Amino acid sequence: MAGNKEISQAVIARLPRYYRFLDTLEAMGTERISSQELSKLMHVTASQIRQDLNHFGGFGQQGYGYNVTYLKDEIGKILGLDATRQLIVIGAGNLGRALLNYGNFSKSGFLFTAVFDADERKIGDRVGELTVQGMEVLTAYLKEHHVDIAVLTVPRDSAESIARTLIDGGVKAIWNFAHIDLDVPEGIQVENVHLVDSLMKLAYNARESEAK
Amino acid sequence: MAGNKEISQAVIARLPRYYRFLDTLEAMGTERISSQELSKLMHVTASQIRQDLNHFGGFGQQGYGYNVTYLKDEIGKILGLDATRQLIVIGAGNLGRALLNYGNFSKSGFLFTAVFDADERKIGDRVGELTVQGMEVLTAYLKEHHVDIAVLTVPRDSAESIARTLIDGGVKAIWNFAHIDLDVPEGIQVENVHLVDSLMKLAYNARESEAK
Repeated sequence: MAGNKEISQAVIARLPRYYRFLDTLEAMGTERISSQELSKLMHVTASQIRQDLNHFGGFGQQGYGYNVTYLKDEIGKILGLDATRQLIVIGAGNLGRALLNYGNFSKSGFLFTAVFDADERKIGDRVGELTVQGMEVLTAYLKEHHVDIAVLTVPRDSAESIARTLIDGGVKAIWNFAHIDLDVPEGIQVENVHLVDSLMKLAYNARESEAK
Repeated sequence: MAGNKEISQAVIARLPRYYRFLDTLEAMGTERISSQELSKLMHVTASQIRQDLNHFGGFGQQGYGYNVTYLKDEIGKILGLDATRQLIVIGAGNLGRALLNYGNFSKSGFLFTAVFDADERKIGDRVGELTVQGMEVLTAYLKEHHVDIAVLTVPRDSAESIARTLIDGGVKAIWNFAHIDLDVPEGIQVENVHLVDSLMKLAYNARESEAK
């Protein structure tokens, strides 16, 4: 397991991708794979693969390669996919609903337990198995329920104040889709999904590529 | 403008963030800002800001700082936000609809011009101002219309084959939300938004942070 040494965010960011490829290989019936083969498939160098996995104890055997299921399960354990995490969603707009209805999260142990919205017209709406609750009950909810991760799919103008309510209520991790970088105290984890930024980068690269 | 020298993807990835902060500063009435102040606000070093912006010719004046509106507009030009881009969406599920209804894209010149789905029950549905079309008309559509970016919000099993259809039809840039890394020919730009990966990284960091 990790924890003994600091592991760089770049390595952490690559682990889910290893997990995804190994999951696909396992589904195709592949039992073992060399770092060279994995390297070709994932378009990263074999040396990077070896270095990345060495952070967590290696898993490979010289001349044999990696056991796909074993490596997948071990990375899953590092990522904590063997545990269940309780998620709440703030913002029951299109994006919030899309995330609530997306099946791939529960497979990895991420369970949505509540959804909140400031818009009175949305309160009481059913989204999957949940009912949209008003923002005024959020603080009370946080007192009574354990929340591992809060998902923020609200407009940028209300994101900061909602983040403060969440943090005051004991939330330690925010998955932020609002078009703003949240300013949070030390010890609070934020992962941003800035869709506009991602699209701008793609558009830039597409134009540069065409210009060549 | 860019183009003379290769600019690293890390720098490109940071440009939309500069743009976002400058846009907020401008909205708040800030006329100029030093790299030190911008550095504090953005939590990056002033030296990185200067280095990043120097790739594009600088824009700053010694002892004066940056003119917010000018710098924002110049970064906008580099990102091509002064031009209009035509986007199509493949997959009219919750996520596809969320993206189609998200207002922040059109502000930056990204216009959705068509949406397609393989599910007959969805064909004919209205999403915003568009009508969902069947996948069988996609190739014909690509022959008759210019498409800058195709947005892929389909299940992972159909993503590869749809990507091939798009590329065969002349699409040069794919914004991929499918839970798979697409294997595309050279010259085709792909930007992935792997939501599950992002959530796994957050969960890992939250757990590590709690363990401390």
